[in-house]
Amino acid sequence: MNGTMPRVKWLAAPSSAAWLEQALAHPELLLIDHAHCERKAAGAALQLMFRYPSDGELAAVLSPLAREELEHFERVQALLERRGLALRALAAPPYGAALAALVRRKEPERRLDSFLVAGLIEARSHERMALLAAHSPVPELRDLYGDLLASEARHFGLYWVLCERGWPRAEVIDRLATLAHHEAAILATLHPQPRMHS
Amino acid sequence: MNGTMPRVKWLAAPSSAAWLEQALAHPELLLIDHAHCERKAAGAALQLMFRYPSDGELAAVLSPLAREELEHFERVQALLERRGLALRALAAPPYGAALAALVRRKEPERRLDSFLVAGLIEARSHERMALLAAHSPVPELRDLYGDLLASEARHFGLYWVLCERGWPRAEVIDRLATLAHHEAAILATLHPQPRMHS
Repeated sequence: MNGTMPRVKWLAAPSSAAWLEQALAHPELLLIDHAHCERKAAGAALQLMFRYPSDGELAAVLSPLAREELEHFERVQALLERRGLALRALAAPPYGAALAALVRRKEPERRLDSFLVAGLIEARSHERMALLAAHSPVPELRDLYGDLLASEARHFGLYWVLCERGWPRAEVIDRLATLAHHEAAILATLHPQPRMHS
Repeated sequence: MNGTMPRVKWLAAPSSAAWLEQALAHPELLLIDHAHCERKAAGAALQLMFRYPSDGELAAVLSPLAREELEHFERVQALLERRGLALRALAAPPYGAALAALVRRKEPERRLDSFLVAGLIEARSHERMALLAAHSPVPELRDLYGDLLASEARHFGLYWVLCERGWPRAEVIDRLATLAHHEAAILATLHPQPRMHS
């Protein structure tokens, strides 16, 4: 991890008070969605490993990251069970598909954009878990979010490292600014269904 | 895990001497293919979790399994690096696609067949790693295969548990016999390129 990584530049705008209010009003729904998010993050990392099968350095970064996301998934699922809640399919908010649509189709741009979008999702998760860790009225949930948010921060750092491995820093920062602007715009309209990324 | 699980029934026929000879003649190629197999196994487990998103019991079995496959991937990759070998894309042998074609398209048959096919692949990996652990002339490789084969055995046991959770044992055994027959038939013709499942 790079000590001079411009952490604050990942997100172009903070989450709205409206999102936090919606999330706090539906803690159980958010928890189920969170479980899905963790395994989707593992799936996204694995997908990149399959897309670039000969990139050993990429795999060395993303395989442990995917394992950690699955550990988080299992932790959230155990908490769901303790609270008598069952995992169930939830309609995805527009967030993921809208971000995926921003990824340029041609290589090597596709690779850079994929890393940056994955990093942005991790950065947003980090920011929102920090809000939930600070504001949830349920001690068990404050503990959960507090424990997991450090990993999310580390994960977006890892995606940053993958970007800097292949592109000049100025180019990465420039493209990140564009994508981060779109990411914030996607979230500017609150999705009516409470989600980690609504 | 079920103590009376009919382990021996998973495979309809042992690997041929020709496969072992081919594998021992190309240890490095086999190692690269092995790395791909481990992460493909993780991908397959994750894919099942995404296909049945509300099945918490399935996820509780397959998420730790996927993590373990990724740990194995990382171990094989580290060994490749120590031996100065690089991960690279390899053309897949017909095995995986031929097995996938046997999975019935309609639910709930699709689910049962998917578990059985995944279990068969684990069982075959187990059998072949045991052969490599016994016959490889390289101590480091004997150790690797010897360490990993126990997990493969446990994994096919887990897929068996998932089958028995939803289907009468007689039905599982019957369908397994059919699929195992096909699996052995696929491998009866040695694929010219050395692979874990050639």
